[in-house]
Amino acid sequence: MDLLRSLWFHCNVLRSTYENQDCSLARALEIIGERWTLLIMRDAFYGVRRFNDFFAHLDAPRSVLSGRLTALVGAGLLVRRPDPDHGGRHLYEVTDKGKTLWPALYALRTWGEQQAADDREPRRVFKHACCGEPLDPTARCGRCEVVPDPTDVAVHPVGVPGEGARTDPVAMGLRKPHRLLTPLPETDVAPETEPAFA
Amino acid sequence: MDLLRSLWFHCNVLRSTYENQDCSLARALEIIGERWTLLIMRDAFYGVRRFNDFFAHLDAPRSVLSGRLTALVGAGLLVRRPDPDHGGRHLYEVTDKGKTLWPALYALRTWGEQQAADDREPRRVFKHACCGEPLDPTARCGRCEVVPDPTDVAVHPVGVPGEGARTDPVAMGLRKPHRLLTPLPETDVAPETEPAFA
Repeated sequence: MDLLRSLWFHCNVLRSTYENQDCSLARALEIIGERWTLLIMRDAFYGVRRFNDFFAHLDAPRSVLSGRLTALVGAGLLVRRPDPDHGGRHLYEVTDKGKTLWPALYALRTWGEQQAADDREPRRVFKHACCGEPLDPTARCGRCEVVPDPTDVAVHPVGVPGEGARTDPVAMGLRKPHRLLTPLPETDVAPETEPAFA
Repeated sequence: MDLLRSLWFHCNVLRSTYENQDCSLARALEIIGERWTLLIMRDAFYGVRRFNDFFAHLDAPRSVLSGRLTALVGAGLLVRRPDPDHGGRHLYEVTDKGKTLWPALYALRTWGEQQAADDREPRRVFKHACCGEPLDPTARCGRCEVVPDPTDVAVHPVGVPGEGARTDPVAMGLRKPHRLLTPLPETDVAPETEPAFA
């Protein structure tokens, strides 16, 4: 009975909608509130485009990653198109609607850095690419007095990666300054990593 | 076996940490990424303080609500103290650390309003209380050029509530302008609604 109860609980009580919450935050969470979804969008902003690269950088199970990518395409935040370099595979790219998520994602990330990171040193700093000014906690460039489009933001590594730091190709690609939404170098992962239509 | 697999999946694959993601966003999501948690914080910013009032306004099951409140207390975003008006019950109040979540929560809410609300009209507008200027999408007052503390933000209803709009006491309390973090009127709910030490 405990098994049945747990399953019912997860399938019903913890479903992904908030039907009786007539609130913009609830609508947002219905789209990006599922586990892994915001981390996938983070990687997409970093310039990750291929299933294999998301898979190499995240630790999400293939089935979860595939489902979340499909949901993000369905919500219009990512677009999926054939990969010209690999028959049968796909590229996922951030849409204009997806780009509008940037200030909220950045604000949440900054909050995590300031309040939830247990005194860890910042690992990355985000700068307005055209002037080099670090963004404030709300993704705004104080010098130019704008919230730059993510294509005008560059992520810079801070310090030397510690022992145990990730060495997957996405992590390695971010060890030098990199402009958001510029494709990262491709990961060399076996072709069969990408599920059908993932 | 399907039952067992689903249970294992939810308990292990979808656990609430992201152990190998050395990233501020992952740390943030470990604290506020669980289902219902951000909606509880939203209500706490609105001025909800009692378990019964969270329960009346949210549709979260009692056990989930109790667990999330306890986790938020553990993370230092809420503080729980005895309710002076009701022996054995408690008040939950947003801490200084909790207040730092406001710009990120507001940015996510605004994104939901602009991108995820399916053309629904905005139901609330948030203004800098001292000047009346609506906040921009990053929680900033453009007139005063600051991101106001949430205690300096007032939420104003927009339009007339439609048929089927919520009529719980929290929703009713928000039908007139209300300053964030100012306690809302108490809900008249049976005392036994609050679980032990919830």
